[in-house]
Amino acid sequence: MTVVTTGPVAGLLAALGDAVVTDSDTMIAYTRDQSMLSPSGHPIAVVRARTTDHVVRTLKTAHRYGIPVVTRGAGTGLAGGANAIDGCIVLSTEKLDRILTIDEQSRTATVEPGVINGDLAAAAAERGLWYVPDPGSRAVSTIGGNLATNAGGACCAKYGVTGDHVARIKAVLADGRIIHTGATTRKNVAGLNLTQLLVGSEGTLAVIVEATMRLRRPPARTATVVAAFAEPVRAVDAVMAIQAVADPSLVELMDRTTISAVNDMTRMGLDQTAGALLLIQCDGDAAPAEAQRSADACRAAAATELYMSTDPAEGDALMQARSVALTALERRGSTLLDDLAVPVPRLPHMLDAITRIADHHRLLIGTFGHAADGNLHPTIVFDAADPDAAERAHQAFDEMVAQCLALGGSITGEHGVGDLKRRYLEPMIGSVERSLMAEVKAAFDPTGILNPGRAI
Amino acid sequence: MTVVTTGPVAGLLAALGDAVVTDSDTMIAYTRDQSMLSPSGHPIAVVRARTTDHVVRTLKTAHRYGIPVVTRGAGTGLAGGANAIDGCIVLSTEKLDRILTIDEQSRTATVEPGVINGDLAAAAAERGLWYVPDPGSRAVSTIGGNLATNAGGACCAKYGVTGDHVARIKAVLADGRIIHTGATTRKNVAGLNLTQLLVGSEGTLAVIVEATMRLRRPPARTATVVAAFAEPVRAVDAVMAIQAVADPSLVELMDRTTISAVNDMTRMGLDQTAGALLLIQCDGDAAPAEAQRSADACRAAAATELYMSTDPAEGDALMQARSVALTALERRGSTLLDDLAVPVPRLPHMLDAITRIADHHRLLIGTFGHAADGNLHPTIVFDAADPDAAERAHQAFDEMVAQCLALGGSITGEHGVGDLKRRYLEPMIGSVERSLMAEVKAAFDPTGILNPGRAI
Repeated sequence: MTVVTTGPVAGLLAALGDAVVTDSDTMIAYTRDQSMLSPSGHPIAVVRARTTDHVVRTLKTAHRYGIPVVTRGAGTGLAGGANAIDGCIVLSTEKLDRILTIDEQSRTATVEPGVINGDLAAAAAERGLWYVPDPGSRAVSTIGGNLATNAGGACCAKYGVTGDHVARIKAVLADGRIIHTGATTRKNVAGLNLTQLLVGSEGTLAVIVEATMRLRRPPARTATVVAAFAEPVRAVDAVMAIQAVADPSLVELMDRTTISAVNDMTRMGLDQTAGALLLIQCDGDAAPAEAQRSADACRAAAATELYMSTDPAEGDALMQARSVALTALERRGSTLLDDLAVPVPRLPHMLDAITRIADHHRLLIGTFGHAADGNLHPTIVFDAADPDAAERAHQAFDEMVAQCLALGGSITGEHGVGDLKRRYLEPMIGSVERSLMAEVKAAFDPTGILNPGRAI
Repeated sequence: MTVVTTGPVAGLLAALGDAVVTDSDTMIAYTRDQSMLSPSGHPIAVVRARTTDHVVRTLKTAHRYGIPVVTRGAGTGLAGGANAIDGCIVLSTEKLDRILTIDEQSRTATVEPGVINGDLAAAAAERGLWYVPDPGSRAVSTIGGNLATNAGGACCAKYGVTGDHVARIKAVLADGRIIHTGATTRKNVAGLNLTQLLVGSEGTLAVIVEATMRLRRPPARTATVVAAFAEPVRAVDAVMAIQAVADPSLVELMDRTTISAVNDMTRMGLDQTAGALLLIQCDGDAAPAEAQRSADACRAAAATELYMSTDPAEGDALMQARSVALTALERRGSTLLDDLAVPVPRLPHMLDAITRIADHHRLLIGTFGHAADGNLHPTIVFDAADPDAAERAHQAFDEMVAQCLALGGSITGEHGVGDLKRRYLEPMIGSVERSLMAEVKAAFDPTGILNPGRAI
């Protein structure tokens, strides 16, 4: 055992005591997120912050020694944004996990960043309130991570992404100074919108130590529609027709490959002959009427099967088909999960392109996603032990992103840029815009220690 | 007549020809917004840009000579943010007024910044779509100005402010380079959120030359409730009770002074004995049911009068009482209109404080506003010709802002900081935050020519 007496690790130990981990067996669990494609390095230490002061001390030490800091929540990210960098400090906020207040009258919850999304939702539900954002990872991912990546989910279709539900953020700057952004009032236009700048910045601007999230009145009713279509293009026709007559809370799409994988795993008996399946949910007082109009729109778009339920438990059961999509595809091989968004009318072109790319590279690609938002997760299934297949998978990944950009899309709808999508960022946003983002980062973090090289 | 052959005005004339105005009689119309309290200076020229290239040339010239640029739309601002600065160029975008595209399938409209809000709403309505943001100035104010101030309105209660309806912005930087922010997709988390940074930045970061705004499906039905209460605190009780059972699209409040002024002007016969009036509107399929529950909530909160209508035309007529509130108060003297936001549960404290301040300074203060958002417009009515009254009015204005901050509120819910609220900004947001905003501005505008001294 080496006893370190000077340098950054000694500085961390002196400042933070048992919040610091330097044992490599323990540190290994803090070096990667859930992304398969991004490299990760070896940290010099992991700090498991339990207080804001721990975060301040970590950043002051890092700032003094010019050491990169990679902040992470639960590590459920899908773009490598929380992967360790060689020689960095990994700053985990998972133990900053207190729900500080739930204000029923203002309908807000103030939480530390390590609070699990599902725990906040449950605590809100106990008070008769609803924490809306529902990323697929909600049972394990944290509010801090959700904010850092501006996590999406299914009910964005009606209610927006995580950033649409935050009122106020408390964060620590790279040099250890504390800032508060936003306001708890419903409306506030005082000064520049630093709150939405922090949202989605993937730990590159500041470390979030507290956030006030907005809660809603839960919907009185929900109603669910399942519709099968012979061809994906008919399903997209239906999505647009639905949006003309209803405001569904979610519209999820699964393609034939995904349907088949889900059937194999769950024996749910989904229609294997269908080219695409839509799962639609409406909520609120008028949910049954909206669902009926949605079903009618599906029928007019040549749905081959239709099923509707106003029973919430049955609705949840039907939604399981979509929830297990990725797990079901993972049973067929290694997966490369993508996250592309196109304008809804362009979905048929994107789905066609995915099929073409899969055929050309002799790959299985299962596509599912949030159809109402044009946000698809084409998932390449391949044999990672076969170098040729891996090479083809990576080529297909590149080609899908290129097609998405050609259709006026975004390289990431809800997973973030992280490390994975960095090379696609400038082709999407432009070089002037990218250098402007770098200047904005420098305004927050002049020495560039916060998650350098990520997000922008 | 002086023929200028060198210097910035000559540079503008050479670059922009008849888009440049230097005649002082014409320029005078471009030197002020609608704010009563803020100083204005003398510009060296006004540019009435008709193309993006005009904006680029103006900024390049200003950048070369280090001349401040004050960008303005229709000049309906209420915080002095568009007032000319001595020696500045005023850059008017009012003639950049084309609706470029309305995409019915993607439900977006791409417009130039000088398009009038109401004109966009009308064009959308012709296609069966709805442009939602409804600032009081919507008949005359522009989309560019609405974005620059992040303008609010009544239906923010359900649908949010202008910034919640923008997908993408094209803007010109201080040095003439063009940027595009955001994406037309429903979801996009690629890079930092420059879009929401531009929104509300009051011309300090860049000049917006194009914006893609989101449109919605219009609601099938609306229903309106009018409720009178003996005391303002009962009206606020009702607001919170309503929000527990409905999602009203608007909840507007008027106090006794405002009711009386509106009655005098319109002979509408509002209940003069009431301490406060609420105007509530619900929309969507379930509007009648939501309105009924809202009315029940008002009754439970001891409403002294209740009226409900599901007729849209009657609903519009009832809303007139609120629309004319400011005009009605202006008939009683000079006015100082404020724009304060507090958490909804603190509204009774704010309303009490306003009454106390009015009494103490022997002033008439009429208060109306967006109760569901906690956003009040206390309006001081005084005799501007009486220096003592003017002094008392200014003191009262300061004291109301101080009370708002003490209640955890925001110094501006929807009008912006401009010049008027600058001295209150740092007490609200903090000095670290303010200097951070200045650094962010410097990232966009290193030489500080864009609306210097405003907003931050």
